Amino acid sequence: MAFIEGGWPNVTHEADREYFGRVADLTLRHARIVAFGSTRRASLPAEDDPQLRGVLDAGTSVACLFGKSWGLHVAEVLRTDLVTNLAMIESSVAFLAAHGREVIYDAEHFFDGYRADPAYALATLEAAARGGASRLVLCDTNGGTLPLTLHDVVKTVIDTLGRPVGIHTHNDAGCGVANALMAVKAGANHVQGTINGFGERCGNANLCQIIPNLVLKLGHQAIDEEQLTHLTEVSRLVSELANLHHDDRQGFVGGSAFAHKGGMHIDAVQKNPQAYEHVPPERVGNQRRVLVSDQAGAGTLVWKLERMYPALDKGSATVRGLLQRLKDLEAEGYQFEAAEASFELLAKRALGDFRPHFELLYYRVRLDREGEGGTVHEATVKLRVNGDVRHTAAEGNGPVNALNLALKKALEEFYPDVARFHLTDFKVRVLDSAAGTAARVRVLVQTRVNGFEFGTVGVSSDVIEASWEALVDSVEYGLGRLEAEPDRP
Amino acid sequence: MAFIEGGWPNVTHEADREYFGRVADLTLRHARIVAFGSTRRASLPAEDDPQLRGVLDAGTSVACLFGKSWGLHVAEVLRTDLVTNLAMIESSVAFLAAHGREVIYDAEHFFDGYRADPAYALATLEAAARGGASRLVLCDTNGGTLPLTLHDVVKTVIDTLGRPVGIHTHNDAGCGVANALMAVKAGANHVQGTINGFGERCGNANLCQIIPNLVLKLGHQAIDEEQLTHLTEVSRLVSELANLHHDDRQGFVGGSAFAHKGGMHIDAVQKNPQAYEHVPPERVGNQRRVLVSDQAGAGTLVWKLERMYPALDKGSATVRGLLQRLKDLEAEGYQFEAAEASFELLAKRALGDFRPHFELLYYRVRLDREGEGGTVHEATVKLRVNGDVRHTAAEGNGPVNALNLALKKALEEFYPDVARFHLTDFKVRVLDSAAGTAARVRVLVQTRVNGFEFGTVGVSSDVIEASWEALVDSVEYGLGRLEAEPDRP
Repeated sequence: MAFIEGGWPNVTHEADREYFGRVADLTLRHARIVAFGSTRRASLPAEDDPQLRGVLDAGTSVACLFGKSWGLHVAEVLRTDLVTNLAMIESSVAFLAAHGREVIYDAEHFFDGYRADPAYALATLEAAARGGASRLVLCDTNGGTLPLTLHDVVKTVIDTLGRPVGIHTHNDAGCGVANALMAVKAGANHVQGTINGFGERCGNANLCQIIPNLVLKLGHQAIDEEQLTHLTEVSRLVSELANLHHDDRQGFVGGSAFAHKGGMHIDAVQKNPQAYEHVPPERVGNQRRVLVSDQAGAGTLVWKLERMYPALDKGSATVRGLLQRLKDLEAEGYQFEAAEASFELLAKRALGDFRPHFELLYYRVRLDREGEGGTVHEATVKLRVNGDVRHTAAEGNGPVNALNLALKKALEEFYPDVARFHLTDFKVRVLDSAAGTAARVRVLVQTRVNGFEFGTVGVSSDVIEASWEALVDSVEYGLGRLEAEPDRP
Repeated sequence: MAFIEGGWPNVTHEADREYFGRVADLTLRHARIVAFGSTRRASLPAEDDPQLRGVLDAGTSVACLFGKSWGLHVAEVLRTDLVTNLAMIESSVAFLAAHGREVIYDAEHFFDGYRADPAYALATLEAAARGGASRLVLCDTNGGTLPLTLHDVVKTVIDTLGRPVGIHTHNDAGCGVANALMAVKAGANHVQGTINGFGERCGNANLCQIIPNLVLKLGHQAIDEEQLTHLTEVSRLVSELANLHHDDRQGFVGGSAFAHKGGMHIDAVQKNPQAYEHVPPERVGNQRRVLVSDQAGAGTLVWKLERMYPALDKGSATVRGLLQRLKDLEAEGYQFEAAEASFELLAKRALGDFRPHFELLYYRVRLDREGEGGTVHEATVKLRVNGDVRHTAAEGNGPVNALNLALKKALEEFYPDVARFHLTDFKVRVLDSAAGTAARVRVLVQTRVNGFEFGTVGVSSDVIEASWEALVDSVEYGLGRLEAEPDRP
């Protein structure tokens, strides 16, 4: 049974209220939507508490209420007494249950509360159970409990209550994922977490780690094997929607999770992927990557270029020259891990196999900002294509945008395909940021053509020049691909 | 006893060779430097193996050798037999020990090897012990072992060998830190890891999590309490040196580890920090942060501005107006968590307390790039200071640099202090990166004046305009501070 907790419906955000209205119209195949809330105030009966009314008004079939398990919170945050808190828990759960809601009870700070006073912490769970809660979830709200302690507490609680519990962990001690798994080993049958671990402070338990561990290693049918192959895609999508950087170092779903760089590791993985991979990347929808970098040897380079140049000789001067050029560029701040198209162009140039589609004569960019008014951005580009000179100008809503538009305009007549090149990602990384505005920057551009995506890179102390470089590579690579494989660029 | 593993001295990198030469001259108070290497080749006696010679030539008092524990690796990667592998381990360790080295033995893939064939995995450890290894370290090289399994294996190995072991874990299953702690609970007395968990794929076990857990929670004297207060500083420094983003979500040492955003959490932490903090931030040299954001309420805002405006009324129209302005700006992509100086200027403006130091009439930026030649960047700035108009121009090695220089030039005559404003950090984040070159960008600038640092922010679809905004805030805030507190800006 899967639940999606949709937030606290009585907060002042219009967006949160709108959410429950619209989500009710979705047809969900696997999950049920849950409204979140807290136990009632000490001073009000549950039916008069506006916050509990809000949970009810969200109209979900399931509600999740959190309550206090820890005397410190009861006394200093709620400012009430231990007996009243038990009554608040029981009556709040009972109120929602009486209105036909399935109620999940989140025992906030359970592990801190249990350490301070085990009997009282257990009494809060019993109060929620008497109120009719279907699931009792032990929360490590401050994220500081360590795995063995957590395991033993979960086991004792399950033995004492004679029923399974759920687990909700945070990552403040770096153990959010491990703690959730330890709880499952101790008998928990319900895990709360978030995609990519997004959450307050150091994050919640990361479902993109927990789910594959449960399915592939502990043999639990958390989701089926086919669904699991979409995990990397879901992880990336959620980062995109949240407009947060996708952590490449995440286990299973990160861009580096199955990336091999050192020559010895690459050599071993060529012999048997199991040598340095704990699970096959395709099981979680991820893929193996062989990173070309200054740590790569000639063998890796040749392996990498095999598809394009099957006959390449590892010992040749050309390959040695390419390797040296790669090392020099990496020392300048280039990175080809996320810009394999630029790497291929580099290899083509080194192998004398590159024919440029155009030659730049010059570009100029102007920015005029008047006082508090807007800024005008104008770019002019002059270039030569097969002997013909084209000189174009464009305005954009930023200097790089203006330059990109002027470039496309100048090329469209010769290469109408460039109109279909869609930039799907544009990243700027300041390299030596301590150098302030004189720092070098690396620009990574991701381009999509006919559903195929590729990355290019540029480096300069001028962000516009670095962008230009990445844009030019994107055009050159995209056009080259379309010519080589017209159907699938 | 602390060890710093300095790398593999016989690789082809000049930098690695230089390292061992120079590190020998350092006076280290706590740690010993370790040279890393592997067991000898199957075909050579240890004394003829050039790689082992390299480890010896590094001149360290300690060496760390890794060898194979897993039949799969012996057969498919080394391409030798199980008995030869045992001889390789014993003779390689013995060779270095005979030359006076203390030898740490890293049993690579120990947990995978143990799962496949426990007796053979144990036999490899015994071979290293016979060779004279002082420490036997169990490595979870592929990072896929889960905490309870790892705990039980470590315990069995210690019981069988009758001596403690070390532990070396990776984070591929999201359990790197937990696994190291579980091993310690099982009796391991030596932990290998890296600062910030930097390492291949998903990283090594993160010492910035392991150390505070060992010291503050498990009562081990891994480092003393005073040293522990430098942990956050060390973590940030290593990110700086590696030129990698410092992960704000890292436990203990991350910028968000003790950050409170939701109104309810801030309210509770005001009453008692323990309510939502698993350890006091100052123990690890970090600090509590109250984040001003659209989730903040008027109470938080007033608490935050208390130092500047002690008499501010939470219910006033001014505070409500400032809160609304804050929400609007965050919706546009501004973020004030790392730009508290911009937040203070915003508050001053809302409270009618802001007097600008200058007024912009216009700026213009030109970029001229000729073919493959260099690019000329020129900025002109015209502004008014107390009725006087100044018009300056500057060239820079990028457009933002040129603009910054022209701005400082125009202001220096009136405010000579700006010459001492040092930009220590300059970051560009593309917000809606899928919009390609038309995306909005957020620029964060960090400025140091007289040893005091502060952050400012700008947002625009034009990276230069966003930079200008952050630079102007930096000048306005820095000058304001110098006037208010001339001794300590």
